[in-house]
Amino acid sequence: MLKVNIERIESDLYALSKFGFNTNDKGIYRQGLTEIDMQARRWLMDKYNEAGMDVHMDGAGNVCGRYGSSTEPAITIASHLDSVPAGGMFDGTLGVISGLEIVRTLAENQIEPKYPIEVIATSEEEGRFGGMLGAQALSGQLTLEWLESAQDPNGERLVDALKKVGLEPQEALHARRDPKTIKAFLELHIEQGPVLEAQNKEVGIVTGISGVFKWLVKLIGKADHAGTAPMDMRSDAFMGVADFAHEISRIIDEEGSDSSRLTIGRVELKPGYAHTIPGEAYFTLVGRDLDPHVMEQLATSCRKVLSAIARKHNLMFEYEQMSWLEPKKFNNQIINLVESIAKKEKLDYLIMPSGAGHDCQFFTDLVPTGLIFIPSVGGISHAPDEWSHWDDVETGSNLLLKTVLELENVES
Amino acid sequence: MLKVNIERIESDLYALSKFGFNTNDKGIYRQGLTEIDMQARRWLMDKYNEAGMDVHMDGAGNVCGRYGSSTEPAITIASHLDSVPAGGMFDGTLGVISGLEIVRTLAENQIEPKYPIEVIATSEEEGRFGGMLGAQALSGQLTLEWLESAQDPNGERLVDALKKVGLEPQEALHARRDPKTIKAFLELHIEQGPVLEAQNKEVGIVTGISGVFKWLVKLIGKADHAGTAPMDMRSDAFMGVADFAHEISRIIDEEGSDSSRLTIGRVELKPGYAHTIPGEAYFTLVGRDLDPHVMEQLATSCRKVLSAIARKHNLMFEYEQMSWLEPKKFNNQIINLVESIAKKEKLDYLIMPSGAGHDCQFFTDLVPTGLIFIPSVGGISHAPDEWSHWDDVETGSNLLLKTVLELENVES
Repeated sequence: MLKVNIERIESDLYALSKFGFNTNDKGIYRQGLTEIDMQARRWLMDKYNEAGMDVHMDGAGNVCGRYGSSTEPAITIASHLDSVPAGGMFDGTLGVISGLEIVRTLAENQIEPKYPIEVIATSEEEGRFGGMLGAQALSGQLTLEWLESAQDPNGERLVDALKKVGLEPQEALHARRDPKTIKAFLELHIEQGPVLEAQNKEVGIVTGISGVFKWLVKLIGKADHAGTAPMDMRSDAFMGVADFAHEISRIIDEEGSDSSRLTIGRVELKPGYAHTIPGEAYFTLVGRDLDPHVMEQLATSCRKVLSAIARKHNLMFEYEQMSWLEPKKFNNQIINLVESIAKKEKLDYLIMPSGAGHDCQFFTDLVPTGLIFIPSVGGISHAPDEWSHWDDVETGSNLLLKTVLELENVES
Repeated sequence: MLKVNIERIESDLYALSKFGFNTNDKGIYRQGLTEIDMQARRWLMDKYNEAGMDVHMDGAGNVCGRYGSSTEPAITIASHLDSVPAGGMFDGTLGVISGLEIVRTLAENQIEPKYPIEVIATSEEEGRFGGMLGAQALSGQLTLEWLESAQDPNGERLVDALKKVGLEPQEALHARRDPKTIKAFLELHIEQGPVLEAQNKEVGIVTGISGVFKWLVKLIGKADHAGTAPMDMRSDAFMGVADFAHEISRIIDEEGSDSSRLTIGRVELKPGYAHTIPGEAYFTLVGRDLDPHVMEQLATSCRKVLSAIARKHNLMFEYEQMSWLEPKKFNNQIINLVESIAKKEKLDYLIMPSGAGHDCQFFTDLVPTGLIFIPSVGGISHAPDEWSHWDDVETGSNLLLKTVLELENVES
């Protein structure tokens, strides 16, 4: 009965958390393609070497370590090493260190895998430049046009950031991996949500990643004196936003599913004075669902409800669709395999969707791909108090290890 | 049949509109206690002199002109000369120039009034320093403490602004007028709202000025990832604001009156990202009514509804009452007098409340006080496209003239 060594995982995660640690807010600042991110990557390459892996950093900054055959297709374990500003110590790093620990576990038990184990620490997953650079490059979904036009919120160009850390921008396009060289793509990640903890589950077996659309919505009415304009003679742009927000639960009840999400995250009113009726309202609407058809239904319903509310309040309604990403489904054979192991190990597991994006989503259409979650305490992530219990880290890592071992027995 | 000369009013209003006119946005920038405001005041003093009035500027910057007896109590016609930034050419100035024109009309008809006519161009009505300096000073509602602590939004102190235009701050406290020296206080103003135009009325006879309360409301929930947090596990602070806004019309139907107003003019969400559930919402709530008891009922209902909504969304609810100003009622004898004239002149008039504050509100408890409105085109004010038709300016000014003449016949 092979098992990972949780002390080594714990020690490595603590060691990694020092790269970019801020003593004031206790958050980790290891944004993609920064010098501290590169230092963490070089530390990881040393760890890969100690574990007896073949190591290289590709042109996109992904740190790749290979254990076993150099010709057979690999069982690839990947997640990211970069963090959001003021992030936590498990997001991304969990998947990388678990992969490394699985290799160490095989090595110290003198197990020579038929299909090599590959561990990849992807670069720039958190979207400092608006994408997921590492996974896009690996899966061949990086274009020269995007590479040259992408900028971070401070206006730093992606090509300049790559050069600054010693990477040649055009080399990122060489990071693409032929899908034939990957037997399966696996990721272990913290849930970053409250569901597993609330349902007292040890692991989540993820069926897919929700698609997401983002709208910028504009409602234009008429700014008026809040004292002189009677309630029934107003074109109050904020009342349009409020009435729409009030309809969100009905829209999901009628058109959505359990995985549906509709969120208004940002609202700006103009002129924005206490004594003036808001003449203009700008807000973001982000919609998600696991089913592309349901996404369409949600979007259609939002459009109709907003149009009707705009008419009622005498407002002009416009929106701009900033993005529309289709949902991604994970491989059924991987889901079934992981579930059968979870059953055998008597784990309390949940079959669940992911509402957040992950590196693995770029591989669902290319190779058999799977994603395992462990609980996040309080559902918190992207914050200094992000935490997962070490018991759950161990359980998740062992489930990943057993999945790898089972896949070794499946002929390619 | 005495009548004002509308050509002179028109010419004076155009002349005044040059002081602070901005050629880019066509707005008037003549904020209180600025150099351009003082230039306009000196121009007005010349006009008063030409009309044969006794003229002085008091310590608060009010420009006072008196026509007739220096011992009898005056019929005072007052409004303000300052503008908001990017304001229009009728707000305030209408009342001042109408008063001046009434004096000129009496003078050219060799009418010696028993009770002198006093025309006052008040200073700083638009609240650059958070009050109505001129009217407060005249009515004795100015304190040394406020005078010394008041600042404009840029942090300029009121005392420094006074000094900069050559006024001695403590002299503002000498501007107070003994109510016994004022027989009646009259103001003619544009409505700054849409009601008169919508109802096709020529003038409004104002019964009172709504009281107003201003709250800063805080709803605190939990910021979460908009994808990973299911709809029923959120503490979305914005949904609290939206649900409350949705209840505003019900609150007014149940607890309010025709003069009730509840307005959310400013909303700030934190962190304010499209993909993050708003954990904190801050908004302003401004409530108004003509009846102090109804104001109390509205405030109580808002508090209860916000508490209930906060519980439902698992939010913390707090509010700070920034101000509470009681409603002001105008003098019934003045209202009846103006109405009887309007009837005799076959004017299409409306008995109506004022939702906005005006200089005259400081005198309602001291002397018989009245306010007359003329229509604002499109209800627009505090904007470059503020407009009133010259016909309506003439009608309003003649109604004010006849009111003055009738009051001359009332013994003090």
